[in-house]
Parts: sequence; structure tokens; C-alpha cells
Amino acid sequence: MNDPIPTFEVAVLGATGRVGQEYLGILKDHPWFKVVEVTGNTKIGQKLGDVVENLPSPMSSLEIKESNPSKIESRLVFSPLPTDIAKQVESNFSRAGFSVITDASPHRMDQDVPLMIPEVNPEHLGMLRKNFTGDHHLPPKSKKKGFIVATPNCTTIGLAMTLKPLHVAYNVSKVVMTSFQALSGAGYPGVPSLDIEDNVIPFIDGEEEKVAKETNKLLGTYDEKENAFKPSSIEIYCSCNRVAVIDGHLESVYLEAKDRISDPESVLSNFKSIPQKLKLPSAPERPIVVMKEKNRPQPRLDRMVGNGMSTVVGRIRQDNEKALQYHLLTHNTIRGAAGGAILTAELLCKIFDGII
Amino acid sequence: MNDPIPTFEVAVLGATGRVGQEYLGILKDHPWFKVVEVTGNTKIGQKLGDVVENLPSPMSSLEIKESNPSKIESRLVFSPLPTDIAKQVESNFSRAGFSVITDASPHRMDQDVPLMIPEVNPEHLGMLRKNFTGDHHLPPKSKKKGFIVATPNCTTIGLAMTLKPLHVAYNVSKVVMTSFQALSGAGYPGVPSLDIEDNVIPFIDGEEEKVAKETNKLLGTYDEKENAFKPSSIEIYCSCNRVAVIDGHLESVYLEAKDRISDPESVLSNFKSIPQKLKLPSAPERPIVVMKEKNRPQPRLDRMVGNGMSTVVGRIRQDNEKALQYHLLTHNTIRGAAGGAILTAELLCKIFDGII
Amino acid sequence: MNDPIPTFEVAVLGATGRVGQEYLGILKDHPWFKVVEVTGNTKIGQKLGDVVENLPSPMSSLEIKESNPSKIESRLVFSPLPTDIAKQVESNFSRAGFSVITDASPHRMDQDVPLMIPEVNPEHLGMLRKNFTGDHHLPPKSKKKGFIVATPNCTTIGLAMTLKPLHVAYNVSKVVMTSFQALSGAGYPGVPSLDIEDNVIPFIDGEEEKVAKETNKLLGTYDEKENAFKPSSIEIYCSCNRVAVIDGHLESVYLEAKDRISDPESVLSNFKSIPQKLKLPSAPERPIVVMKEKNRPQPRLDRMVGNGMSTVVGRIRQDNEKALQYHLLTHNTIRGAAGGAILTAELLCKIFDGII
Amino acid sequence: MNDPIPTFEVAVLGATGRVGQEYLGILKDHPWFKVVEVTGNTKIGQKLGDVVENLPSPMSSLEIKESNPSKIESRLVFSPLPTDIAKQVESNFSRAGFSVITDASPHRMDQDVPLMIPEVNPEHLGMLRKNFTGDHHLPPKSKKKGFIVATPNCTTIGLAMTLKPLHVAYNVSKVVMTSFQALSGAGYPGVPSLDIEDNVIPFIDGEEEKVAKETNKLLGTYDEKENAFKPSSIEIYCSCNRVAVIDGHLESVYLEAKDRISDPESVLSNFKSIPQKLKLPSAPERPIVVMKEKNRPQPRLDRMVGNGMSTVVGRIRQDNEKALQYHLLTHNTIRGAAGGAILTAELLCKIFDGII
Repeated sequence: MNDPIPTFEVAVLGATGRVGQEYLGILKDHPWFKVVEVTGNTKIGQKLGDVVENLPSPMSSLEIKESNPSKIESRLVFSPLPTDIAKQVESNFSRAGFSVITDASPHRMDQDVPLMIPEVNPEHLGMLRKNFTGDHHLPPKSKKKGFIVATPNCTTIGLAMTLKPLHVAYNVSKVVMTSFQALSGAGYPGVPSLDIEDNVIPFIDGEEEKVAKETNKLLGTYDEKENAFKPSSIEIYCSCNRVAVIDGHLESVYLEAKDRISDPESVLSNFKSIPQKLKLPSAPERPIVVMKEKNRPQPRLDRMVGNGMSTVVGRIRQDNEKALQYHLLTHNTIRGAAGGAILTAELLCKIFDGII
Repeated sequence: MNDPIPTFEVAVLGATGRVGQEYLGILKDHPWFKVVEVTGNTKIGQKLGDVVENLPSPMSSLEIKESNPSKIESRLVFSPLPTDIAKQVESNFSRAGFSVITDASPHRMDQDVPLMIPEVNPEHLGMLRKNFTGDHHLPPKSKKKGFIVATPNCTTIGLAMTLKPLHVAYNVSKVVMTSFQALSGAGYPGVPSLDIEDNVIPFIDGEEEKVAKETNKLLGTYDEKENAFKPSSIEIYCSCNRVAVIDGHLESVYLEAKDRISDPESVLSNFKSIPQKLKLPSAPERPIVVMKEKNRPQPRLDRMVGNGMSTVVGRIRQDNEKALQYHLLTHNTIRGAAGGAILTAELLCKIFDGII
Repeated sequence: MNDPIPTFEVAVLGATGRVGQEYLGILKDHPWFKVVEVTGNTKIGQKLGDVVENLPSPMSSLEIKESNPSKIESRLVFSPLPTDIAKQVESNFSRAGFSVITDASPHRMDQDVPLMIPEVNPEHLGMLRKNFTGDHHLPPKSKKKGFIVATPNCTTIGLAMTLKPLHVAYNVSKVVMTSFQALSGAGYPGVPSLDIEDNVIPFIDGEEEKVAKETNKLLGTYDEKENAFKPSSIEIYCSCNRVAVIDGHLESVYLEAKDRISDPESVLSNFKSIPQKLKLPSAPERPIVVMKEKNRPQPRLDRMVGNGMSTVVGRIRQDNEKALQYHLLTHNTIRGAAGGAILTAELLCKIFDGII
Repeated sequence: MNDPIPTFEVAVLGATGRVGQEYLGILKDHPWFKVVEVTGNTKIGQKLGDVVENLPSPMSSLEIKESNPSKIESRLVFSPLPTDIAKQVESNFSRAGFSVITDASPHRMDQDVPLMIPEVNPEHLGMLRKNFTGDHHLPPKSKKKGFIVATPNCTTIGLAMTLKPLHVAYNVSKVVMTSFQALSGAGYPGVPSLDIEDNVIPFIDGEEEKVAKETNKLLGTYDEKENAFKPSSIEIYCSCNRVAVIDGHLESVYLEAKDRISDPESVLSNFKSIPQKLKLPSAPERPIVVMKEKNRPQPRLDRMVGNGMSTVVGRIRQDNEKALQYHLLTHNTIRGAAGGAILTAELLCKIFDGII
């Protein structure tokens, strides 16, 4: 018999922003997490319901606080903050003893920050366990031992998700990835319509470097002795492009492996991991869904597979023993942002609160 | 002093179709070619001007004839016929002694058909010379020694154009190409709007195979002794995708070379070939234009560079000595169809009519 | 205490077509209607589940029959047939004693066919009652007294829905309507992408005439004595245009009334009718939802209001006592097709099976 | 025999902005106007060619000055300034004795500012003549008698252009206009792509009021005795909407006239005015081009008619003697901005410099 999961009281930083509101939207019906505090950049002191529309009653009456650790009680903090302020604020909260879950980029490559896709590298959370030896629970705030857990760039996620089982099976050595990224990935107002109508923009600043580095961190190992992450050393070449699609990042992947590739379709479609075994609330039944139709996945038709939490793969084709091509699609604002961060928090709470 | 170029009287098969009309549009002001005959599938016997709008007066009064060699006098024939009927009709004309220039796919890989990008493989026309030894002029119709010259798929062109100087310089061994292809590439009515709005279609039937094979034929050699084309043996992996762009095929390219790659930008931007030397009327001053802006080329902004006849390259980036990445853009209905075929005809006429 | 509603066994003609599949999608969970027979144009004799994907098990095992009255047992028949064959097939079924609900256009203006928006003119069903005096139930098939009930053009619906309460309140005399119609209104493949990208098409064949005539039939009365529909005589000027929107017809309306217009917002937002009173399963709580934001309704944001069954109104502005302007939005493939027809069938069954 | 037109030396205010660059693009080849001074908001003192790309050599070496009358010598000044600073700067220049041509909105409705479409109301320039009695030439700067001439909103232009001949012929009493406005009308970055993809925005702030007022000013008269503009009194109802089109404002028009409407197509297509008679360099041969195809004008296909200076009309339909419907299309950034202002300046110079 399972013990009931306790309710975790959480804070959402930057809750009035566009991404913050997506967190509120998912969390308002969450079985484990209860939003009891919110912060904002402006309108401090106002009620959340006066700034954000369509919130249920307990959430709407929350007071908007400053993004300052001294104002917050909840030990678990979601940080959908814009990149430019995330770095400092997240460090402040971590140093003050909070557990910070962020989808912002500044701390992703920090040596003491686990970069997490729960299905890909759950063992990386071992660093937190190590850092709090003898205490499998989240550190109480009083102990002032906080930490940051980051989720990857929205373009990294589908790539790392599909590479994980392939790398385990075939020892991937080289990847060439070309992306077709959705407009929502650039935030709001983001891409001017005059730039993208009847057009493709073949450049997204900093994205290609992020995807390459993050993917190798995700596919690497956590070395408990050295208490360090050891990245994998796959050669990764990226080309990141913006197309006129609202949501859903499509990627075209070519890869080479050291070992003979056989039956990659089964390897991909059979992939399941810890979040599925733990039946985490936000975990899709299948992290990777393989479509057999010759012209799929397509962003508009397939982005909501698995409630936007599955990565959809199609057009798997193998020209020779050691080279493979396929397309993948990931919902960039669900799995690639709020949904991915919340699933990460679920894993964290499940593991560290001793249910398993 | 240059001899004046004689006027070539030409026929356009399928002139009333959509692509046929593009030929008429370019040819109506052409300094060398004069359209004196047209054929169609329907409306035989009517005046061309009653079926196609906005034609100048000599062209508009042409009578629409059957696509049958017995009805045509001009020895040079352009064939913008739809794929399904091109195969047979082009063979008919060739066997009847006509010189056929086609952008259709059926004969591209035929062993006795030169597949031509005038800047890439002008020497392939040597096969025609060989087949008509002692006579550098186009075969008179009476001799009944016709031939077909084909132009490549619109997605092949930019790839082969940029690979040519790189292959010469560095000995390219492997290519991974992902395309962002324009709607006009699918003809009319082509792609339903409901399929492409807020979407990308990650599949174009047969395209990936064509691009790989055609590119190796183009980059190969013509062996005069064996009177055969010897394809190059570059490993080419393609991913062909349709995006919501009207005109202009964008391609993201990754390649590996056997030799050390150095200064690829100069190699690309300095590329000039026979059409430039001969100052052929449709030849762009620079077949490859390199843009240094970090977010170019873009289809809407750059497709008309060189009057739609140049391939525009950008984002050249080199991660190591033997790997290179870049983007390229080619106007698919100009260089990729009528413009490319007419340039090919110009080269043919210039070489075989003994001006050089 | 309400009697339980009996289950109606229904047939769907043309169930394998695109619109037919939308009917199946809505009907598979319907509390009253059970699809027990389906017809198609091809694949007669095959199982429905082999032709249409994602159907639940009882529906998927139905055999596809011919669209022929002699093959069908269910007395209630939905006809999502294409226009060109709907006319004859629907007449065949009607003459054979079936009750036919259609969203096709051929019979809409027939003198003995009620054209129905359940909220707008439920009393028009009186003609059926009249034609079957003494029998409030649907005519048993054996009696061979069938009929056709039609639903309006998808562009008519929002206009008539909003005009109804305004006409009752102010006596509308003139309407100028300009539409921004979605791509899905043209069916599939419908509008070529090359026609609509970076463009608007200012013409939809036959649409303007249909909207004007149908609206006056809908806003007219049923004269029981003469057993005839008496159209209203509003002057209606339409301009119908296609825009690059997937679903949702937006319309800009100007109207003049004979009576003084006051508080039109309340008149619109307070409108409720028989389907709401009867709590019909597909009836939206509010047939007209008024938005106060200055830049709404917008197709992508608002088309699903009321599960796609509400008409959304905004930008209500009154320049003088007798002139009014507003925008409206209706989901063209839900309220404008399958959803509207099913709501009409619900009203028919509720009224004629004696619940009220 | 015509005297040769002298060259006018002109200044362009805000020349480094997006609209300013459009002026430079048109003016660099202008037969009458020579840009000899430019101003900007930033980068004062730099060379224009260092800030704006692709300028010819004399223009590129101009120094960027402050938008301050004391820095400028040219008596004719174009003002493509952003709305927020145009009001004050234009007043400054006018008071300092300059002749200012502006397409900004702040001074359009000023009582002493002619609002000009050269084909519609050339006689309104009479106010300037009146204000400088006895001197038909532009006032020399030393006299300090400057003025402002404004051009209308880009949505007003096509409407007023088509109403002019119709009003003269039939005495128009009421107009209902619904617009489909292009993205470029909102400037850059303007409309976020996330707002317009798969969508229509049914609101443009302040636009509807501007169009109504400006149209009546344009169609009104200049009363020389009172030295005042007397607006017409047409009832004008507007609905302004943004659609996913790059350039070209489409408008759907309904109108009523006091007089019987007959042969409106001829009235529209035969319209010519002073700019055509004077053969002004930027004047299109036909200010109104009527298309007979049933589905035209379309923005992408027809916006460049008359080099973007003609208004294209189609779908003329008359339901009764006194009501008319049609569609019109005007290029919003050519006729609706730089092109319209330059044509206005041409008229001004032609009339006031005594050539006629």
C-alpha cells in the first residue's frame, strides 16, 4: 500500500509573467503541489487575481511579494524568471536555503547544479543526496542548505530524450541536429510577424551552443566519489532555426553510433524510465511515442501527444549499420518549460521524501 | 570582336501550364531565344494569347500545337511538362532528332542524359560532343540525332552548387542536409493551406533520394573514353521538409571533408565558372553570394539575389578541421526551374555553335 | 421528475468523409444518439474501423453501407454529404420516410424544409408538427412520411444568432456584414496554400447570396395557417472573404434599426432560448458571449468558447440611436456544421418525443 | 515647350528610421528632389552611410544632424518622424519658415494644415497660396512663413481615392468600411507573430476615428473667402482589422448615395486628376485601376499595381439604385506613406514654382 503523498507548499517566482502564468495554470490542479506564495517584479502587494485572469479562488487571493528570500516561507520554489534576473535571484534563494527548480539558462551548466530530464538522468539527483548526507528529505530551510535544480533548453529536451535509449543501446558518437523551432520559444512579444511571415529565420542566438553542451551533460554520468557530473563526449552539431509555427519544436536528427544499430524503433518506443515507474503525476505513459506514418510528426497535429509531455518520433530511417535519421517533436512550452520543471519537482519530492 | 549570337528559334512544350508560363515570361525578352512554337495538352489550335494572359504580341498569336514531334519544326525544345507525361514525350522528341532541355525528373538519371548545372559540371556536355563527333553544332533535325539534357531537382541545385568548390578544395566525404522547402516547389494547387498553416510537413515524397543521387551525378566526372558519367561517392543524408514560405528553398548543411578545411568563405564566394566567363545572358555575376550577417540567408529577404539565379550562403561555421556547417538558399522556381533550364540552353548553344 | 431520454438509434450518411468523421467524433459520446448505421461512397461492405481511425469499439465494427434508403433501418439520419450528391440522396431518404438532418445547402431554401438554428427559430419546427397532425412523435418509418431539416451556412449562423435578439428588441432594417472566413470552411484540400499565404481572398462563390437569404428565412416566422415560412425583409449586404485562419469565422457587422437602440450589450448577453431552457446536451449555457476587451473576439483565442457552440461578440459600438456596429465569431466546423446539426436533432427529438 | 524642372534640395527628418529609409530609397533616384540634409535621433554627427546600408555615394556621405530648424538649410523638409515626436518637431520647423511634408498624424486635422491626396483635393493647396499672397513660390526661408502639409492615414487613402469620383457623380451619403490591414502598417517590430498567426486582430487603436474624420476633410472643400476647409458630411462607419498580410490594405466598402448610381465602374476607372495631367514623376497613370476578375484585388497579387501608387478596385456590385459595394486595395507603405508624401511634394513644387 502506498502512503499518501503529502501536499507540498510551493512558491512561484515571477508568477505574473507569461511563463509564470503557465506554471499557475498547471499547478492549480496539481495533486501534490499547492501554490501558497507568489512573487512579481511589479505590482507588489496587489492580489494575484487582480493581475492574472481566470485563477481559482484560493490562488487569486494570494498577495504578490518581492522575489526576495526573506519574504518567502515555502521551501520549494519554482523559478520561471526571465534570464536576465534569474541568475542572481536564484542564487539568492539557493544560498538562503531554498530548493529552487528553474527552467532558466544561467545555472544549467553550473558544476553543482543537476540539469534534469527526469526520464533521462534521474541519477543526477544523487548529487543533492550527497550534499545532504543522512538526510533524504529536502533540507529544512533553517539548515540553510539550499540548491538549484535546472531543466534544459526546450530544444535540448527532445534531442536528449531520444538520444538516451539510443546511446545506451548503440553508443552514439556523433549527432547532426537541425531544428524547426516554434514562435512561442522566443517568448512574448518575441518574433515580429514581419520577420517570420513567408520566411524562416536561420539563427537563434546562443541556442546551438546550449543544445550541444546541455545534451552532453544530460547524457553524462554523476560520479558519486568525485561528486561531479561527467559529461558524455558525443560530437554534436546543431543548426537552430525559427519557423512560423505557434508551439512545438520539430527536429531533424542524423546520428552515428560506434555499435551496430538494429531495431531502433523498438529501442525508442520501449523506452520507459523512473517517472513512469513511479507514476509521477505529470509523467506521460510513454516518454517517446513513435509514429509510423511517413509524414509525421507534425507540430500542429502531434504536439499535444501525452498531454504535451511526450516526445514524438517519426521517419526513422537507417541507411547503413551505423547511421540513423529521424524526426522528433517536443512541445516547447509544456515539456520544454513548466511541465518539465514540475515533473522534475515531482521526482525530487518523491525521491527525497522517502516514499520509495 | 565577338560574333553576334544568332537567334535560336525554340519551342516550348506544355507552354500553357503553370511552369510553362514561367518559361514564356523569361523567354519573351531573351536576347538569343525566340519562341516560335508552343504545345499544350488541351486547347489545341487556339491562339496562345487566348489562353495565357499578358503575353507580348508576337508570342500571343502563336497557335497551340500538340506535343508531338511531327508538329514541331524548331530543333531546340524546352520541356516544362508535368512528370507523368514528360518521360514519354521527351523520349519521342529526342528520338525524332530534337534537342530537348527539361527540368522534369524522369530522365535525369539516364546514362546518356547529361544532368546539368552550368556552373557545376559544364564538361558533362562533352557526352553530346562525343555523340556527334566532328560536328560541334547542334545536330540538324534531318540527321535525327536528338538528345535530352536535364536540369536537377530544385533542392539539389543549391546543394550541388555549394559543394562543387568545397569538394574541389577539400575532398568532401559526407553531407547531412536538412531542407526548409517552399510551397511553390509542390506546384499548384500543391500543399493545402490546412496542412501547412501553423505547421511543418517533415516529408516530401521521393525528394531525399533524388537529392542524394543527383548530387553525386553532378559532382562526378564525364569519362570521355568510356563515354559515361562517373558519379562521385559522397555519402549524402537528406531530410526534406515543407514550410510555410512562398518561394525559396533554404537548406542547412553539415559536411565532412578528407582534407583540411581552411577559409571556406573565400572558396565559396570566389567560385566562378564557365557561364560567368562566357557572360551567358542568364548567368548571375556570382553563382554563390556569401552573406556575413549572422541571421541570413532568409527566404523572403534573399531569394531574389542575382535575379533569383544566385545561391546565397550564410552562417558558415567550422567546428573543427574537417567539418563545416552552413545554410544556403536557392530560388526554387527561378534557378530551380525555368531560369536554370534556360541557362543550360544558353551554355549548350554557346558551346555547340562554336562561338568559343 | 424528468423522464429519462430514450436512446435514439441514428445513421450517419457519408460517415467516412471528413465532415462525416466530425459527426462520429461528437456522436461517439452522445448521451441520446447511438450511431448504429453508417454509409459511404466507397469501401462499401468494409468495417468502419478499417477506414476511419481512432473509433471506439462498437462504432468501429459497423459495416459501411450504401447511401440508399433501402439499406437503412434507423429513422433519424444525419447527412454530412458533399453538396453535389446531397440533393438527390437527401430527397431519396426523405421520400422513403426518414427524418433527415443536413448541413448541406441544396434543400435549405426549400419551402417545406425548416432551416434551423435551435436558439433562433425553434418555432419553425411547427411545420413538421403540422405535417404530422396528431402525432407529436417522429413519423415511424412505415408511414413513409419523412422530412428534411437543414442547418444554415456556417457564415449565416453567427449573424442570425446575434440579429435575433437585436431584431426582436429594435426591429432591424438593414445589415452590412463583412466576413473573415477560416480555411476549414472551404473543406479539404480546399484553399491552396499558395493562394492564401501573405494574402486575403476577397470572394467566396455563392456565399454572400446564401447568407442574405438564409438569414431572412431564419429571422422570419412560420405561418401555421398557410403552413409556410414568411421571411423577414431586412436589407442584408454581405462581403465574404477568406483569411489565413484555421478555424473560426469572424464577422464585422453594421446594422440599422427602426427603433431606438439602447443597451445592446445586455440584449445580446442576456439572450437565451429554448435549447438552454431544455438543457439540450449540446446547447451552450450562453448562445451569445459578449467580451468587453477592446480587441476581441479573435479567432484563435475565442473560437472554443462554449465548446465551440457559442457565438462570441465584441467591440459593440453605437454611433447614433439607430446604428450599431459589432464583431462576432462562430466556430465554423462545430456550431457551423456537426455541432449545429446535432443540436438541431436534439431539439427535434426533445420536442417531438413529448418531453415538453 | 516645358521649362526644365529645377532641382529642389530637400532635407529628410528622421532619415535613419525605418520609414525614413523608405524615403531615401525613393528619393535617391528622384528627378526633382535631391536629399542634401538628413537628421536623426541618435548618431548625430556620423555619416549616413555608416548607419543606413545600400545608399548611393552622394547620399551616404551626408552628416546626420539634429532635428532642429537651426541646423537645416533646405526649405523643403520631409518628416517621416514617429508620431510621438512629430508634433513638436514639425511645429518647430513650420514656425521657423520651413515647408514641411509629413505623413505623421498629429497635424492632419489642424485647421491650417492641408491634408492632401494629390488626386483627391489638389485645390486644398489654395490655402497656402492664400497665406502667401502675391508669391506663388515657396516662401523663402528668410521670410519665416513656413507651413505643414500632411498626408492621410494609410487606410484613409484608398477609401478617399475611390469615394472622390463616386461622390462627385452620385453624392455619397453613407459609407460602411471594413478593413483587412497589413502587418507593415503597424511599423516594426509592430505586431508580434504570436498575436497574428492563425488569427485576425479586430481592432487598431484610433484608426476608425481617423479614417472617418480624415475622409470627410479630404472630400470637403477649401473655402477661399473664409480661408478654411469645409469637410463633407458623409456618415462613415469603420471597422479596422489586422490580418496576416505583409503589405497592402484591403478594404470592403458599402456605400449609399443620394443620387442614382449608374455605371460606377466607368466612373472609377476613368478617374484622372491633376497629378496625371501634370505628369508628376510619382503619379500613376491611373490612380484607380478596376479589375474585372471576380476574386480580385488580392493583397499579394495586386499591391504593386501602378508601382504601388494606384488604388486597385474590384468586386463592384450594385444591389439597388442607391447602394454600392466594392473592394479596394492600396499599398500602405508606398502610396500610404513615402510615395504619397513625395507625390504631394511634387504637386506643391509644380504649382508653387510657377511651371504651369
